Amino acid sequence: MNKIQGKGVCGAVTMGKLYFYKKDNDTISRKTITDPEAEQQRFDRARQQAAQELDALHEKALREVGEIHAQIFEIHRMMLEDEDYCSSVSHIIHTQRVNAEYAVLRTSDSFSQMFSTMTDEYMQARAADVVDISNRLIRCLSGGSEESLLTREPVILVAEDLTPSETVQLDKEKILAFLTLRGSENSHTAILARTMAIPAVVGLGHLDPAMEGKTAIVDGFTGTVCIDPDAEAIAAYTRKKQQEEEKHRLWQSLRGKSNTTLDGRSIRLYANIGGLDDISAALQNDAGGIGLFRSEFLYLQNDHMPTEEEQFRAYREAAEKLAGKPVIIRTMDIGADKQIDYFHLPKEENPALGYRAIRICLSEPELFRTQLRALYRAGVYGDLSIMFPMITSPEEIRHIQKQAELARQELRQQEIPFREHMETGIMIETPAAAVISDILAPMVDFFSIGTNDLTQYALAIDRQNPSLEAFYQPHHEAVLRLIHQVIRNAHKAGIWAGICGELGADPALTERFLRMGVDELSVSPAQILPIREKIRSMDLRQ
Amino acid sequence: MNKIQGKGVCGAVTMGKLYFYKKDNDTISRKTITDPEAEQQRFDRARQQAAQELDALHEKALREVGEIHAQIFEIHRMMLEDEDYCSSVSHIIHTQRVNAEYAVLRTSDSFSQMFSTMTDEYMQARAADVVDISNRLIRCLSGGSEESLLTREPVILVAEDLTPSETVQLDKEKILAFLTLRGSENSHTAILARTMAIPAVVGLGHLDPAMEGKTAIVDGFTGTVCIDPDAEAIAAYTRKKQQEEEKHRLWQSLRGKSNTTLDGRSIRLYANIGGLDDISAALQNDAGGIGLFRSEFLYLQNDHMPTEEEQFRAYREAAEKLAGKPVIIRTMDIGADKQIDYFHLPKEENPALGYRAIRICLSEPELFRTQLRALYRAGVYGDLSIMFPMITSPEEIRHIQKQAELARQELRQQEIPFREHMETGIMIETPAAAVISDILAPMVDFFSIGTNDLTQYALAIDRQNPSLEAFYQPHHEAVLRLIHQVIRNAHKAGIWAGICGELGADPALTERFLRMGVDELSVSPAQILPIREKIRSMDLRQ
Repeated sequence: MNKIQGKGVCGAVTMGKLYFYKKDNDTISRKTITDPEAEQQRFDRARQQAAQELDALHEKALREVGEIHAQIFEIHRMMLEDEDYCSSVSHIIHTQRVNAEYAVLRTSDSFSQMFSTMTDEYMQARAADVVDISNRLIRCLSGGSEESLLTREPVILVAEDLTPSETVQLDKEKILAFLTLRGSENSHTAILARTMAIPAVVGLGHLDPAMEGKTAIVDGFTGTVCIDPDAEAIAAYTRKKQQEEEKHRLWQSLRGKSNTTLDGRSIRLYANIGGLDDISAALQNDAGGIGLFRSEFLYLQNDHMPTEEEQFRAYREAAEKLAGKPVIIRTMDIGADKQIDYFHLPKEENPALGYRAIRICLSEPELFRTQLRALYRAGVYGDLSIMFPMITSPEEIRHIQKQAELARQELRQQEIPFREHMETGIMIETPAAAVISDILAPMVDFFSIGTNDLTQYALAIDRQNPSLEAFYQPHHEAVLRLIHQVIRNAHKAGIWAGICGELGADPALTERFLRMGVDELSVSPAQILPIREKIRSMDLRQ
Repeated sequence: MNKIQGKGVCGAVTMGKLYFYKKDNDTISRKTITDPEAEQQRFDRARQQAAQELDALHEKALREVGEIHAQIFEIHRMMLEDEDYCSSVSHIIHTQRVNAEYAVLRTSDSFSQMFSTMTDEYMQARAADVVDISNRLIRCLSGGSEESLLTREPVILVAEDLTPSETVQLDKEKILAFLTLRGSENSHTAILARTMAIPAVVGLGHLDPAMEGKTAIVDGFTGTVCIDPDAEAIAAYTRKKQQEEEKHRLWQSLRGKSNTTLDGRSIRLYANIGGLDDISAALQNDAGGIGLFRSEFLYLQNDHMPTEEEQFRAYREAAEKLAGKPVIIRTMDIGADKQIDYFHLPKEENPALGYRAIRICLSEPELFRTQLRALYRAGVYGDLSIMFPMITSPEEIRHIQKQAELARQELRQQEIPFREHMETGIMIETPAAAVISDILAPMVDFFSIGTNDLTQYALAIDRQNPSLEAFYQPHHEAVLRLIHQVIRNAHKAGIWAGICGELGADPALTERFLRMGVDELSVSPAQILPIREKIRSMDLRQ
């Protein structure tokens, strides 16, 4: 038996045979050619084929992992058009008179090398994308067509690393789990694994290819991989697996049940979603409504500011699909950390403390009213509410109300149907808003506490910064106190308060939040039934 | 009469004649030369002369404006050594066979152009530095020696823009005020003007050179410049000037007086300083002690980590100069926003929420203990205390105490004299620390509230970000509530609480802070006497 340790990035345990995935481009060789023009044409055709493949992959990803994750393929699509990249390939073909495969490989190496030495983590991650798109081009050049990783029986896939597009293409029926030797917990691949619910362990360091075909137990919770397990390990695995399956059956049996504690206290359990494609997952997991509908996808998926009509159609579809259940749509939360060319946002020293979300909306009222008009119009088709992010002061709420009134006035004058009264709430995600929540509560219909940003600002710690892991305390007492204070102030003013950040889905805190009197928790679709189970097992009288 | 409006960057009103400052390099012409080597040698000699001048300027700036501001000349010194810059000049001399002056001018143009189109504000500011150092080189090339802006009578200086080194060289006896057509409130030049207390208005846009010699009234508070003032304007100016002078006389008469309200409540008024050279200003302005001695200058002025001896000497000198008055030294508050090569800090997405201050110290205990040992040793020579920045949790304080105990143990074992018990306090500058100040208070001897960072984190607004001016509320109710809560929690635990951020020097808040029971305000030296006046005029019974 042989135990090795990596980082578990997606829960669940599984057992199966190891299968080592070898990539094609290990065997690219440099060939001298006589006709650079012909070679350039081969490259151009490969680019066209790659573009078509990426469009198809984008479609598949949209269906399976949602809009946000599907964007990686749009990024790849853009890289295919990148002038520096393409002219580097052409230059190598023409000056060195070599085959296009080799020119792509050399360009890939130098570009990914450049990206990976950058100190900016975002740019470092782009190194993997360059390799991904280059491998695709090389396969297209050698006449290969896209195929999933096909194996006769379900296996545990082992790879040096997996690109995001390889991960999306994994066939869930055939892949029991995947292991990568490199890779980090925060990589796009790890995030995709979680979204697709494939057990995965990354950063294993080394695994001897001679292990091919051996049986292994993968624990995606602890990151442990046990190769050639002995009887005891298999027995332990079997028990764990059974418990897991029982959990799953239990969760499924809770569909249609109420979120009520043993002593009869009920709360609402809603879903956070990032686009229309996530709605089916929310409904399948029995969400009581949508507690946070992020509207950013409308801005990210286009190369232009989304029009009122485009937005209206999306919000209306959401309202109709929820068929009367509440949908809370958050207005645009975009800032300098998200790269959207047509916004022309200035580069900022500290984007998390920067020009983002409601600050952009209040500075550009035309843009803001376009979204508000679309929302008021869609309100006719279901139970929609509007939620505003990054609030810090009563003045901002007054400005918002003025713009909302203007938007309704415009619709009235143009005789366009809209809902006159829609509930409006605010995110409580700055410490300032939490501290003056008694002042803000009488101005709105509800509060939704965004614990991710609230924690980040309260502790002055960027969660994405790997140097600060030792200092980041997700359950910091100050944050829990602020949450309690916000709930109390909401109730004093007769409005409800929910939590839509990650803490809301943390079962270790569910009881504490219920004791604080929280009215709603909005979590990712997959977390609804587990949290429901937690609530139903609780007795607040104790 | 003619009124124009700019941005006032330094208070005080003044009246005088306008004098337009014309820079020499308007007249540089391109000359073909035959001996590029000789030209290169001229350039090398000019660089040597410029380096000597900059060293002298650095000395002058150290004396007159303090260590932090003097650093600009060290930056210039580094630019003189910059390989890209020097090889660009050589390249132009050799390939175009032109005079060195012209090569410097061309290099200056292209480098400053490059910097000024960067989106990063810090890099934009470097454009002015390139121009500054290039002008110096051109003057050295043409055999000119450094001279201050000499005029027969005191004048109001008008310039397109002023470089930091020109600003430092201004002779306060001869320059009543300065006006610049370009420039912003946050430029280094504006900051220097405030430190040197020269009335200044920047960003005037346009001023006809035909106005040379005309009388003007400059209001550095409002940013108004009144040219050819009529009798009424002159009368208004005279009244304002008299009031100002009375104020100044009043403030000077308060030296030696107590900071006591009419109803007998006293508080401590201390000075914030950035280096040893600021101590004399603190004492001249009758500071009761040093409430915040920033230790960063030790790390910024060297090209290596300051040794224990270097630090010890600096802290000892501070203790001795204060002759028994308290000196509170804050441990290193450095992060990715300050560029220090030898720290090798990773570039961060959000440096304000990043790896800085106590987070670096606790991650690199050797570095931390070097500073702690120097502080405990210097404690023998006066009333020193230690203050720790960026605290968020009791765990951090426990780690600090452990390192402090280790440092003392080491000194004990090595039989090096040190003070066994020194008071230690923490900065309250994260919202988390404010919210749990009841938990932190029993662990330390005092609190000092850093309102700049506290406000920035509470509002999630980077104060340096010009896009957010409309949203930044310096007197935000949430911040004032947090301050009040911190003071209450300090007193409950029997420790004192002071304020060392900018709000502490805001006379509009002095009464409110006194009513909250604040024990100490630590402000810049020039603000001590004005705040003393404010306190002495207050009656808290009303």
